[in-house]
Amino acid sequence: MFKATVIVKRRPKILDPQGKAVEQGAKLLGFNNVKQTRIGKYIEFFVETDDLKAAEKEVKEYSEKLLSNPIMEDFEFTLVEVNSPKTEVKIARD
Amino acid sequence: MFKATVIVKRRPKILDPQGKAVEQGAKLLGFNNVKQTRIGKYIEFFVETDDLKAAEKEVKEYSEKLLSNPIMEDFEFTLVEVNSPKTEVKIARD
Repeated sequence: MFKATVIVKRRPKILDPQGKAVEQGAKLLGFNNVKQTRIGKYIEFFVETDDLKAAEKEVKEYSEKLLSNPIMEDFEFTLVEVNSPKTEVKIARD
Repeated sequence: MFKATVIVKRRPKILDPQGKAVEQGAKLLGFNNVKQTRIGKYIEFFVETDDLKAAEKEVKEYSEKLLSNPIMEDFEFTLVEVNSPKTEVKIARD
């Protein structure tokens, strides 16, 4: 099993009104050093397979088709192998 | 100057209806290995100061007061020093 982490960001040239709005709030609260806030998505999930290539393919397609908007967003992902309940180490009794 | 990256996630015990909805879409598209999708926020911005302690304090307060909902979300952040335009290295002519 793999744990996948996907980050989805708007392309740099595309305006981010949500980030702009939050940054206006920052100015009102006195955070004057904060600049160029941009807000994207951070997505975590598990992929139930032990085949890294298959996991990569599934995460890429999932990101392209559901997690990101291909017109204006880019994504990047990482995969980390984790123990599935099936392969959990059992502690033997003496 | 520092570049800050903040990740905001719902606490593990709190339901994530957005993640559930996206995962239902995944099932319909045939991504059957995807489990437990959870969707959070990924925020990037610059902090215009050269003092790491001051930058940390500002990012922490910004995250607590504007970027996350303290009732049901946790956040984590990283800071990386970047060259500000003021300190940019100039290439000397021969």
